[in-house]
Amino acid sequence: MTVAALGFMPDRGSDTPIFEQICAAIRSRIRSGALAPEERLPATRALATDLGVARATVVTAYEQLMAEGYLRSRRGSGYTVCAMGEVELSPAEETYPAQDLTEHPPLSLEAGEPDMRLFPYRAWAKCVSRLCRTRPEEMLTGCGGFGHPELRQAIATHVRDWRGIPARPEQILVTSGATEALDICLHALARQGGTVAVEDPGFPPICNFAEAQGLRVRDLFVDAQGAEVPTVGDGTGVVVLTPSHQYPLGGAMSAGRRQSFIAWAAQAGGWIIEDDYDSEFRYAGHPIPAMAGVDAQGRTVYIGSFSKVFSNSLRMGYIVAPDGLVDVLGTAMSAKGARASSMPQAALAEFMHRGEFYRHLRRVRRVYAERHRNLVDRLRRDFSDVGHVQDHHAGMQVVLHLRDGLNDQKLAQSARAHGLGADALSAFCRGSAGLNGLILGASLNDLDEQEEALERLRRVISSTEKSPPQERIFRT
Amino acid sequence: MTVAALGFMPDRGSDTPIFEQICAAIRSRIRSGALAPEERLPATRALATDLGVARATVVTAYEQLMAEGYLRSRRGSGYTVCAMGEVELSPAEETYPAQDLTEHPPLSLEAGEPDMRLFPYRAWAKCVSRLCRTRPEEMLTGCGGFGHPELRQAIATHVRDWRGIPARPEQILVTSGATEALDICLHALARQGGTVAVEDPGFPPICNFAEAQGLRVRDLFVDAQGAEVPTVGDGTGVVVLTPSHQYPLGGAMSAGRRQSFIAWAAQAGGWIIEDDYDSEFRYAGHPIPAMAGVDAQGRTVYIGSFSKVFSNSLRMGYIVAPDGLVDVLGTAMSAKGARASSMPQAALAEFMHRGEFYRHLRRVRRVYAERHRNLVDRLRRDFSDVGHVQDHHAGMQVVLHLRDGLNDQKLAQSARAHGLGADALSAFCRGSAGLNGLILGASLNDLDEQEEALERLRRVISSTEKSPPQERIFRT
Repeated sequence: MTVAALGFMPDRGSDTPIFEQICAAIRSRIRSGALAPEERLPATRALATDLGVARATVVTAYEQLMAEGYLRSRRGSGYTVCAMGEVELSPAEETYPAQDLTEHPPLSLEAGEPDMRLFPYRAWAKCVSRLCRTRPEEMLTGCGGFGHPELRQAIATHVRDWRGIPARPEQILVTSGATEALDICLHALARQGGTVAVEDPGFPPICNFAEAQGLRVRDLFVDAQGAEVPTVGDGTGVVVLTPSHQYPLGGAMSAGRRQSFIAWAAQAGGWIIEDDYDSEFRYAGHPIPAMAGVDAQGRTVYIGSFSKVFSNSLRMGYIVAPDGLVDVLGTAMSAKGARASSMPQAALAEFMHRGEFYRHLRRVRRVYAERHRNLVDRLRRDFSDVGHVQDHHAGMQVVLHLRDGLNDQKLAQSARAHGLGADALSAFCRGSAGLNGLILGASLNDLDEQEEALERLRRVISSTEKSPPQERIFRT
Repeated sequence: MTVAALGFMPDRGSDTPIFEQICAAIRSRIRSGALAPEERLPATRALATDLGVARATVVTAYEQLMAEGYLRSRRGSGYTVCAMGEVELSPAEETYPAQDLTEHPPLSLEAGEPDMRLFPYRAWAKCVSRLCRTRPEEMLTGCGGFGHPELRQAIATHVRDWRGIPARPEQILVTSGATEALDICLHALARQGGTVAVEDPGFPPICNFAEAQGLRVRDLFVDAQGAEVPTVGDGTGVVVLTPSHQYPLGGAMSAGRRQSFIAWAAQAGGWIIEDDYDSEFRYAGHPIPAMAGVDAQGRTVYIGSFSKVFSNSLRMGYIVAPDGLVDVLGTAMSAKGARASSMPQAALAEFMHRGEFYRHLRRVRRVYAERHRNLVDRLRRDFSDVGHVQDHHAGMQVVLHLRDGLNDQKLAQSARAHGLGADALSAFCRGSAGLNGLILGASLNDLDEQEEALERLRRVISSTEKSPPQERIFRT
């Protein structure tokens, strides 16, 4: 159908966000039959131009309607109307149409992606509007080099209450996300040409950052207790760890191993960078305090992020510097140039001050816990012939360790071709003892979408030609 | 006086920003005599706590009142009330009280600082409120990896109209400021261990960024035509230039020298990074088109920034990639992780779309032109015994080249101790032929403040012990 035939113009004076207005208009036209099953909707770009809104607004509306089962998308043919009650996707289809480089919506089961449909847009907009009305200057000034004062205060309270780190606001440096934080810490703590030890498997960009700074990288094998501890005197100056929730395997480092790392740092004069990327999502048992709260020597620098718990596109993370490192890290940050924008800082400070942040965090924790539970259960029930799963009761992803004969990279590739964002575990390994598994995101999709995605994954696995059996070491 | 004695509470329901309410309350109490001359105002922190506002809000209010002549500040004794009509500052005083590391308000005559009192807070707040009301999701999503689609469109139009670069939106990559843009370009264009050539004098952080990436740095001497051109085959792979307005000297590169650089790039297979940090501020003559608009070979990457023309703390800059480099630069940007926040991008897109950005830009251009004119005139009239000035009719700073016998670093140091943010030109030189001058900011202070600051500078120069005469080469 043409754009004109949609016969709808958004009401900019209304309190209802435009994407919701678009959703409502299309929903009612589908229900009334004005839009028939299999009818094509206007292209996002054309509709956006006609309505005078950003294309992102139309994409958000269409995605919402897809999630609700009103629309489906086919590669190359845009969005079409589903028959009412029809299940959204058939095997050979992708969840999202091919798009620009500029807009990559996540694929189903993509790991580490928050479900932005849960984002409290209205509460956020209310806080921002209040700022606009009363203190507009705060969005533009007053952040200093190290962050908005009230936000630093709020973060200090957050890490004390949620992570057991007794930090003062002066120890908090606000960054444009965890990667900038990591960049600053490596720059400040590693000697030029020195050695940084990282977990294997681990987060691949860490090695790139380190190597781009001219640092040598060595791998720390991860066993059931966590990463192995470097030997004092082997030249390692800095270790980067994910003790709360090993990335990507998912386990927590044992208390004994934590103590060994702290002892190593004290003896070797080394530094620990604790990358605590999603520790707010622990669904059972006692919370595990951060190493930075336990390390009395002050040799652990803590990195936190709002990307997972809140929004990746606001670009906000932070460093909690031990007292003795505030100056060193602050100087490194100044030398590289502060990159966190003042505007979302002021807004987030207000959002935390009003209690909205914790309201949201409690909500997504509850939702993600349910999704995580469902994913683990379904994998155990229906994929036991494919591999096995360990339940760490935490985080935003689950690893399905594949049995011999299945090749994770091949599987991940076919899965992607079918709209599934599964990552191959072996792609996160640097050493020789490769692992073989699929990393599946537990946070992005609701339970129905998860069921549907797992059915698709099942079909992908069945149809993928089996690779010749290889010797694999299972490590979890 | 105590906080309580101020007897004022802000009205959060009012349309008047709180800092203006604070200003109004204090102004009326000074006019009525309730606050007497020499009386101390509450400390910013204490007042902020009592009013339940950010300290930045109180600092903004106090600074506004200082600018209006109601208050003065003395080191260590906070803000006090001026006798009505009294001139604000006496010689040994600083403009700003000693503050946290976290809040460094600029000193008088600090170079490269926009005057945030000119910032259109209300218009900005109105745009943001409109976004909150109608499209809140746009502040949180839809920026993709390379920037908000409408902002990329607006920037493409901006560089076409203002800088003569015929760019499409796909060529625009939005960054968290010019330094991130520079980091990405160096990462993408320089070979590991390769050589980057920079202007001497130049912007010192460029060398730090390059060296932090393991690159060799060589200096390009700047003569009256601009930077010297490297010889083809000397190993230089990338040059970083400020052709519109040499930093910090201020001249524009000659047309012939531009052509020589473009020819060098084509012959040597080299790349030009054009750092166009404040080219919107050209006050006389024809605008000089960007090199990126002239280079038909597509070997010039353009870096622009909103820090100077708009706000430094929003953290926004951009890259205009030649067609052949869009993929390379986009990949480098993705590898390092996008750092520009979605929220100010959506707001700035709306601000540009509504024409507010150009209303503001025209206004500050007019104001800065007058301040630049005044600074050049006053330096020529009253400082001719101290040194000389070249008028480039452009930019946010003026260089006072000092005569022999005056040492710029010593002078800059004493100036800082007297609340003047003058930089020593020699600190921007890397090669042996050091320059000797003071870099004075022309944008931060209004004409009265400028007059006052120059009187103070005069006294600093008179009282500074003369350094022994040295041989100096004047280059402008």
